[in-house]
Amino acid sequence: MARLVGEQDLEDLARGAAVLGTGGGGNPYIGKLLARQAIRQYGPVTLVDAAEVPDDAVVVQSAMMGAPTVMVEKLPGGDEVVNALLALQDHLGQQVTHVVCGEAGGINSTIPFVVAARTGLPLIDADGMGRAFPELQMLVPSMFGVSATPMVVADEKGNTVLLRTTGNRWTERFARSATIEMGCTALIACYAMNGQQVRDTMVLGTLTLCQELGRVIAQARATHTDPVQAVAGRLNGHTVFQGRVADVERRTETGFARGRAVLAGLDPYGGSKLELNFQNEHLVAVRDGRVVASVPDLIMVLDSDSAEPVTTEEIRYGFRVSVLAAPCDPRWRTEAGLALVGPRYFGYDFDFIGVEERLSAEGGTS
Amino acid sequence: MARLVGEQDLEDLARGAAVLGTGGGGNPYIGKLLARQAIRQYGPVTLVDAAEVPDDAVVVQSAMMGAPTVMVEKLPGGDEVVNALLALQDHLGQQVTHVVCGEAGGINSTIPFVVAARTGLPLIDADGMGRAFPELQMLVPSMFGVSATPMVVADEKGNTVLLRTTGNRWTERFARSATIEMGCTALIACYAMNGQQVRDTMVLGTLTLCQELGRVIAQARATHTDPVQAVAGRLNGHTVFQGRVADVERRTETGFARGRAVLAGLDPYGGSKLELNFQNEHLVAVRDGRVVASVPDLIMVLDSDSAEPVTTEEIRYGFRVSVLAAPCDPRWRTEAGLALVGPRYFGYDFDFIGVEERLSAEGGTS
Repeated sequence: MARLVGEQDLEDLARGAAVLGTGGGGNPYIGKLLARQAIRQYGPVTLVDAAEVPDDAVVVQSAMMGAPTVMVEKLPGGDEVVNALLALQDHLGQQVTHVVCGEAGGINSTIPFVVAARTGLPLIDADGMGRAFPELQMLVPSMFGVSATPMVVADEKGNTVLLRTTGNRWTERFARSATIEMGCTALIACYAMNGQQVRDTMVLGTLTLCQELGRVIAQARATHTDPVQAVAGRLNGHTVFQGRVADVERRTETGFARGRAVLAGLDPYGGSKLELNFQNEHLVAVRDGRVVASVPDLIMVLDSDSAEPVTTEEIRYGFRVSVLAAPCDPRWRTEAGLALVGPRYFGYDFDFIGVEERLSAEGGTS
Repeated sequence: MARLVGEQDLEDLARGAAVLGTGGGGNPYIGKLLARQAIRQYGPVTLVDAAEVPDDAVVVQSAMMGAPTVMVEKLPGGDEVVNALLALQDHLGQQVTHVVCGEAGGINSTIPFVVAARTGLPLIDADGMGRAFPELQMLVPSMFGVSATPMVVADEKGNTVLLRTTGNRWTERFARSATIEMGCTALIACYAMNGQQVRDTMVLGTLTLCQELGRVIAQARATHTDPVQAVAGRLNGHTVFQGRVADVERRTETGFARGRAVLAGLDPYGGSKLELNFQNEHLVAVRDGRVVASVPDLIMVLDSDSAEPVTTEEIRYGFRVSVLAAPCDPRWRTEAGLALVGPRYFGYDFDFIGVEERLSAEGGTS
């Protein structure tokens, strides 16, 4: 059912999106401000279910590309947010009818609201990942042969780069290098598809889930119950660690925020250590030398008291955090899915095992 | 006057173009082979004077972009040579009517013959520099506000990148990074202009000059006169050094062949040393600590016996070479020209002085 999303919905939505962002996808505070400003100026956004989208719709994904470490300092200002979509529409020679999110994340779930508000286009309640991943080819539609191109990369200076490539991994390479030249962040429009393709290949209901997650956190805070457990419950997730950030190494390289964080355990994990490896998003969590969760499953770092999601660009020494792991969309766990986003793709020398299996093997921590 | 260029013209043309290429612009032997193959298959190319081009012509530059060190190993094979032009034509929504060279150089003066032969389009006897320069904005038309974009960068895999930018230096950055992702060489189509713009902003007659230079070398060889002096005479140039290559440092970085070569003097330069600095092309020649020639003037390294041009990717220890310097197109010596291609743009801390003035100041070496 179509519904209007206004200012009052953004707080929950951006926070929940940042939970699913698994450390990446951009800062929820900034994401909220960007969407709020657009909705104040242009009015609320119409959110529609994928089921309502006509088969012959022209759906385009709007997102921000780049390193979250830079996104928090170099915000999209105005027209460039819409320019990428308009340049793509111009190239397609067809009127775009709907906007959709590429991934869940504090900014990448809210930038599409900015685009929808400014253009008056409806936004579809879906995304391409059911979480965030660092690279452009890492969308479920890639598995089903949907091309990311034609794709436009645009900056705030008025430069646009239109890509037509022979595969989505090539698109990632060209788009990443253009993004780096643009100053490590850019606005993109890509993965043009019709309504049927949205229903067949996207992860549906993501924005509603984001809003629910935000609401679950707010309610737990208000009722003095544990908001971290509330999130875990909603996502069929498990707490894999609680501790204090003891060390963070972070560098912005090849257009990504890469690094690792080491957490020193607090009760009931006293004496244990957890290492998180990230490339924009958290990729692997290793507890006392053993992998406890890995891509494509979701690894979420939340403030232990408030369940405020902690992104990889803002995680700092001393933060007291809980680490949750939750199963990803089942399509990511197939052979084709793991080829795109499994641990081996990211250079780790082990096979994917689902978080629930890893934890039950060690006698269940939840 | 329009004339047909066939196989028999290519030898002189490619060699002369490599002389004007000032070390860059690609290897003349490979350039000749590429053009010969195309002309054998598709027939001779019609070369037209700029004066004959209609005002409303749609003229596009075809060239190869990248590091010459890679170009000699990764040759353009087939369709990609034409794909860049066709993709640009598609975007322009207008039939391209003429092809033209962006720069003089062993490959970049012959690739346009390949495109012209395959498409049947006439080639204009002109280029954008009157020599070769390493970067895309370094064309006389840039000085007159002609935009390099819309521009297409294409590779042999079928990938295309279409750029629309706010300035030609931005275009260089985006095109260079796309070229690097494509494997350090790519085919480009850019600087679309009309006939009037060709006449007003390009360097005219370049291909005829290339062919003449090649013929002058061939005749001197045949008549056992000095071919190096014959080249110098034709270009109002001066010999600034004769010697043997004693040292070469060369690296392929940021998409360019960068480095320096040191020559140990031979009679009448015995005891002297000349250092050449290059970025694809020779930028500066320093003799015994004093600059004797610099961009935008032409610095040409020729085999001392045969006057065969020696490109920066093939200059080797032990080569016996003569170094010529000759005045550039006068527009490069203006303030606007020097801002684009003067020594300070390339990071050298001295002002441009024309080679004839430098040499007369030291009492004339010629």
